[in-house]
Amino acid sequence: MIDITDKNTVSREAMAKHTMKGFDSLLSYKSALSIFKDEKWLYPDSIQLPLINAPGKISSEEIISSVNVPDRNKSAMDGYALRSIDTLNATPANPVKLLMKGTIAAGDTPEEIVKDGTCIEIYTGSIMPYGSDAVARAENCEAMGNYIYVYSSVNKGENVAPAGEDLKTGDTILGKNSLIYPQNLAALKSYGISNLNVYGNISIGIINTGKELINKQIENSTGMLLRTFYTSSFTDTIDGGIVDDDEKSIAIAVKSIIEKCHILIVTGGSSLGRRDMTTDALSGEGKMLFSGVSIKPGRTIALFNIKNRPVFSVSGLPVAAVLSSFMFVDSYIKNIYGVNYIHRASSILDESIHNRAGFTTFQIARTYAMDGELHSMPLNTKVSGNLSAIIKGNSIIKIDENLEGIPQGSRVNIYIIGDIKWD
Amino acid sequence: MIDITDKNTVSREAMAKHTMKGFDSLLSYKSALSIFKDEKWLYPDSIQLPLINAPGKISSEEIISSVNVPDRNKSAMDGYALRSIDTLNATPANPVKLLMKGTIAAGDTPEEIVKDGTCIEIYTGSIMPYGSDAVARAENCEAMGNYIYVYSSVNKGENVAPAGEDLKTGDTILGKNSLIYPQNLAALKSYGISNLNVYGNISIGIINTGKELINKQIENSTGMLLRTFYTSSFTDTIDGGIVDDDEKSIAIAVKSIIEKCHILIVTGGSSLGRRDMTTDALSGEGKMLFSGVSIKPGRTIALFNIKNRPVFSVSGLPVAAVLSSFMFVDSYIKNIYGVNYIHRASSILDESIHNRAGFTTFQIARTYAMDGELHSMPLNTKVSGNLSAIIKGNSIIKIDENLEGIPQGSRVNIYIIGDIKWD
Repeated sequence: MIDITDKNTVSREAMAKHTMKGFDSLLSYKSALSIFKDEKWLYPDSIQLPLINAPGKISSEEIISSVNVPDRNKSAMDGYALRSIDTLNATPANPVKLLMKGTIAAGDTPEEIVKDGTCIEIYTGSIMPYGSDAVARAENCEAMGNYIYVYSSVNKGENVAPAGEDLKTGDTILGKNSLIYPQNLAALKSYGISNLNVYGNISIGIINTGKELINKQIENSTGMLLRTFYTSSFTDTIDGGIVDDDEKSIAIAVKSIIEKCHILIVTGGSSLGRRDMTTDALSGEGKMLFSGVSIKPGRTIALFNIKNRPVFSVSGLPVAAVLSSFMFVDSYIKNIYGVNYIHRASSILDESIHNRAGFTTFQIARTYAMDGELHSMPLNTKVSGNLSAIIKGNSIIKIDENLEGIPQGSRVNIYIIGDIKWD
Repeated sequence: MIDITDKNTVSREAMAKHTMKGFDSLLSYKSALSIFKDEKWLYPDSIQLPLINAPGKISSEEIISSVNVPDRNKSAMDGYALRSIDTLNATPANPVKLLMKGTIAAGDTPEEIVKDGTCIEIYTGSIMPYGSDAVARAENCEAMGNYIYVYSSVNKGENVAPAGEDLKTGDTILGKNSLIYPQNLAALKSYGISNLNVYGNISIGIINTGKELINKQIENSTGMLLRTFYTSSFTDTIDGGIVDDDEKSIAIAVKSIIEKCHILIVTGGSSLGRRDMTTDALSGEGKMLFSGVSIKPGRTIALFNIKNRPVFSVSGLPVAAVLSSFMFVDSYIKNIYGVNYIHRASSILDESIHNRAGFTTFQIARTYAMDGELHSMPLNTKVSGNLSAIIKGNSIIKIDENLEGIPQGSRVNIYIIGDIKWD
């Protein structure tokens, strides 16, 4: 299959244009991020969802409580609502005897007032009757006929859930641009809200280029990695298919998917030999913002603005593709939507890491819990396509470009990309 | 609405049975967990899913690589495949001149052998031709007619991704009973697998009891909290509806849902006044394993084995319901499926916490990142129904029963239940 007259894919002439130039002049990661932040990007649409479908979405509205919930005191125990002053001297040897005037079942709205020497039977969650200021627990009392013997004194407010306990006027129930958690939804529910405005899921398109994928010489593991990595409670991926290594095919694939995406990632063709095609195809659809960044892995990354969507051209190798795109997508999502894409944590570095000066590096590590503390062991990932390292790892350490390394025992912060076992 | 002749819901007689007894003899959390571990429980079914639908599921099979992937060396750069020995003396001032014998496009399977003084143009990801042992980067070379000038020496293996780089024979691609992450799926894809055996989602049924919910005196925030908290990539919830406070209604609700669940949570009716009904209803369907555990919040929790499913009777108050059930469900899932239900991390405690001796306590805290380190500020949550604390918190600290507190500045491990902002 080797033929020096083969004009297939990239010509030697096209490649020669880059001869002795390559990526020698790489942009720093910080500069690349700042270019990226200056552009005008598509703002996401807001949609309304029932609360039950909203966990893990990003809120597009702020909700502040304008009332106290609940609006009356409630009992926090089963027992007897009473005036605490009546129980002042109650002891097991000398109980206080109170006349029981009735029962407040859960769901009742009591109107009767508790007076001196009386009490009302009450259940957890029931509204406290006026006049009462405490609840004696059932287990500290004894019923005899219509009388209740209280065997220990009760303080004012004891076993009472005060009005406004769930929400007070002015409480932020949900901030704008924040991830929605079950407790926010429970508070919204108790506040009487049924629907919520959230950002629709961020659509991330994935186009994989490469003749080796089309002819099945290799499986599209890069596509699988990106499509599953970028699927979350607030992101979806769109499969833009596998496309041949030529400018026209890439342009057609981009055109057909760009309006359905908020972010587009094109893999392959970012390396020196093929990049002209991808670059030309993407430049034809929009504006190139940068090409080549001093990051490891994935320094061949390029960014375009096409119809106000960020379009990344990244390596075809799976680990380089996911890590280099994540270095930007994470920041993009944080800027536009206000949330972090994945969980992070703090960990102790088990072995020194060296860094190539001037490069911002994503180092794969195996993080484990020991005695309630996280430790991270960096894994050897010399070549950026190395899937075996990433399946043994579960976390990423980001090393800033101004560091020549990080010494053993240092505290680092990690991005969690796999399971960390805790007992 | 107060009527001392009211026989609605719980009778005073039923309540009197518990007089002076209550929950005084609580089981320790550790003992409760051990009872729970001894029972026979329903083992989950395995289902087959396409890889793309498997992220976040739990694997039910182990997959070990029986081959090297890839099976031949590949180029890790664009450039020229050559014999490294030929470039031994190459410098910018004194380049080595090699005859270029052809091009290996991505996807080609080269058969030609690279001999002394020759090279073959190659692209990232292309299979290395026999005879070659290194790749000179395009940017360090110059093409002139059919000759390539190499301006710097290349070491053996340089810019080559060796065979077996993605997967080596014997590598574990995916462990049994482990959470499935994108990198596992990418490796399975490169290994040529399309479908995977995983556990079907764990179904968690939620039944909420209480007249106050039926007559809409309060919103069902507990149901909303539990249903969204127990929805994840590998768990689904089933809404068992709102049921009145009586034994027959509860029994009917349990019967109609139990066979669809792997775990069932019944809220309300776990407190002293109402618990007999729930207890009687659940005991009628299966076996009670414990009732009352020294945990905070939610000491009224009871566990039943009904048709080999764990059935929890918990408080009707939202925070107590979610935290007390989680103290057991987390452990149950870990034992049966081998995975942790939610993310955990290590953090520094900003303020001392006191603990009631003998109680295992879940303390809500606000965790934040500062200088790459996590800090946790405990929040005041005196009453277990307090939603306002849980919406201000994003994490839980578990305090062991043998501790009377944890001093400020200690390192604690946290369960992450909300957003922690990182820059």
